Amino acid sequence: MAKVAVLGSGSWGTALSIVLADNDHKVYLWGRSEEQIKDINENHENKRYLPNVNIPESIVGSTSLKESLVDADAILLVVPTKAMRSVLKDIIGNISSPTIFIHASKGIEPETHYRVSEIIEEEVPHNLRAAVVALSGPSHAEEVSMRQPTTVTSSSLNTEAATYVQDLFMNQHFRVYTNPDLIGVEIGGSLKNIIAIGAGMTNGLGFGDNAKAALMTRGLAEIARLGVKLGANPLTFAGLSGLGDLIVTCTSVHSRNWRAGNMLGKGKALEEVLEEMGMVVEGIRTTKAAYQLAKQMGVDMPITKVLYDVLFHNKTPEDAVSELMGRVKKHEVEYLKIDKLDT
Amino acid sequence: MAKVAVLGSGSWGTALSIVLADNDHKVYLWGRSEEQIKDINENHENKRYLPNVNIPESIVGSTSLKESLVDADAILLVVPTKAMRSVLKDIIGNISSPTIFIHASKGIEPETHYRVSEIIEEEVPHNLRAAVVALSGPSHAEEVSMRQPTTVTSSSLNTEAATYVQDLFMNQHFRVYTNPDLIGVEIGGSLKNIIAIGAGMTNGLGFGDNAKAALMTRGLAEIARLGVKLGANPLTFAGLSGLGDLIVTCTSVHSRNWRAGNMLGKGKALEEVLEEMGMVVEGIRTTKAAYQLAKQMGVDMPITKVLYDVLFHNKTPEDAVSELMGRVKKHEVEYLKIDKLDT
Repeated sequence: MAKVAVLGSGSWGTALSIVLADNDHKVYLWGRSEEQIKDINENHENKRYLPNVNIPESIVGSTSLKESLVDADAILLVVPTKAMRSVLKDIIGNISSPTIFIHASKGIEPETHYRVSEIIEEEVPHNLRAAVVALSGPSHAEEVSMRQPTTVTSSSLNTEAATYVQDLFMNQHFRVYTNPDLIGVEIGGSLKNIIAIGAGMTNGLGFGDNAKAALMTRGLAEIARLGVKLGANPLTFAGLSGLGDLIVTCTSVHSRNWRAGNMLGKGKALEEVLEEMGMVVEGIRTTKAAYQLAKQMGVDMPITKVLYDVLFHNKTPEDAVSELMGRVKKHEVEYLKIDKLDT
Repeated sequence: MAKVAVLGSGSWGTALSIVLADNDHKVYLWGRSEEQIKDINENHENKRYLPNVNIPESIVGSTSLKESLVDADAILLVVPTKAMRSVLKDIIGNISSPTIFIHASKGIEPETHYRVSEIIEEEVPHNLRAAVVALSGPSHAEEVSMRQPTTVTSSSLNTEAATYVQDLFMNQHFRVYTNPDLIGVEIGGSLKNIIAIGAGMTNGLGFGDNAKAALMTRGLAEIARLGVKLGANPLTFAGLSGLGDLIVTCTSVHSRNWRAGNMLGKGKALEEVLEEMGMVVEGIRTTKAAYQLAKQMGVDMPITKVLYDVLFHNKTPEDAVSELMGRVKKHEVEYLKIDKLDT
């Protein structure tokens, strides 16, 4: 039995807490909202983010980072990438020995182009982190909380730590595979949000499954192209954190990124969309970061490029699609080709 | 302008005829049903298979193979794989010079394990076929007939022929890419129907998107494993005829294979399902063929194996899923690994 501090009491943090509690671990679920934590502790519910789900009574909700972190064997970070640095700064004042940092957050930081594990490495001194592990894969929180079959990837440069996290979470409903390719797992999980915006946009424009499937296929190819240039294993993009997560995010109307894209496709401006959503749409920041990164690395990412132009330079969604469809005819292998394909 | 004989007046044959007619080619659309052909010629509709779509008046419906084939530059075969040999036998009595054979049919023949192009090569003498080309990709017929954005692959061992077919079909709504990897294109397009049955089955069992995404991801990996063993390029499975077509087929409730799987998941027996569907479910025969082929080639295909047991040996869908979920914990790269990964 381990003690795990889960930081972030949104739907995904709550669902992962349930998996850990099912496996008899001691879970402290930390959040900023007094009301929400009270709901968790008194009603064993998280009405705001995961309604109609019974939260095991063994889970302790807390607004105190100090209480949550004391004697924690592992810290599970499930906060928006934008909030990651400030949460990490608060953590390091409250721990005193090397701890395993697990994160289940998606995104690339604009300007620095850091993946989440790199942000953790920069913010947490070496003597306070035992290892950094990413947990990623096709997983709606609602389904996980209902104990439906789910598979995810545990990835770390530290193989032992990846296996430790696999053992923490693995049970009969929730299967965890390990993958040492941390770059590939984080890039795939983050950049699929760009393609989800695009998939929503084709829907908003009135297009169907054929257009969506084309976008997803070519989208995954350009994500892999960038990932491989950054040092990832191309096979990772065919796995759960790549293809698997892409499928779940692009084919579900519940995805925030899909919904934002859908509104854009219907002709709404970005400001309107953000106001209406009232929550973080990770893919928008990631589009900017990926666009910058692709430019810097000299990687051709036509879908990311047109979506960047839609989001930040007022290109219309109609023009974006006709630009993508109008490219000169090509051999398929050409757009799939990636610079290096070895394992 | 070319003359094309489209053999098979189902929804996909009709939709592809519309693309050709839009490109100003002369199309003869052949079918066996007098009533349906009359509907096409008199009402410019195909109520049975593609309702509410206006068929261009330039398309000539015909029940005469002879009339359809005279002076044809290309023959487009869109018949069930089961009917392929008998249609080919009828064709060769009605042509006298080398003609391009294009097929848009999916499936592997049980026992022989032939792909459709191999059936064509066996049945049509060398002096009557200029080339064999497969047209495959993520494409609901309904959306193509509505001129929605669609992308497909034209594949042939004969590069010139693949480009000829690309030019025949390419227009502003319908994008065609070429790919010389005929084995990969045909294997991917055929075997995705197996995974579609599985995806429907998870739905029938009451599972959600997480399970479906896991099945699709691991399904594509096992298809690629077999394909590569047969000589395919692994990249093809990441393309339109692999991943793209898998997405469309597994995420649409319109797919026959998905619907058959859904009924099986709800507890119906195979005989009941087939009776209720009243039409060809290509994936059922393909599951048998792929199971045999995997065994013969020594390739591990756990999803195909359990679906084969459900279809032909009365394994329950519940047992199938728990068998898949219960496999020993693994490294992700292990199940993704394919024997040969070079381009």
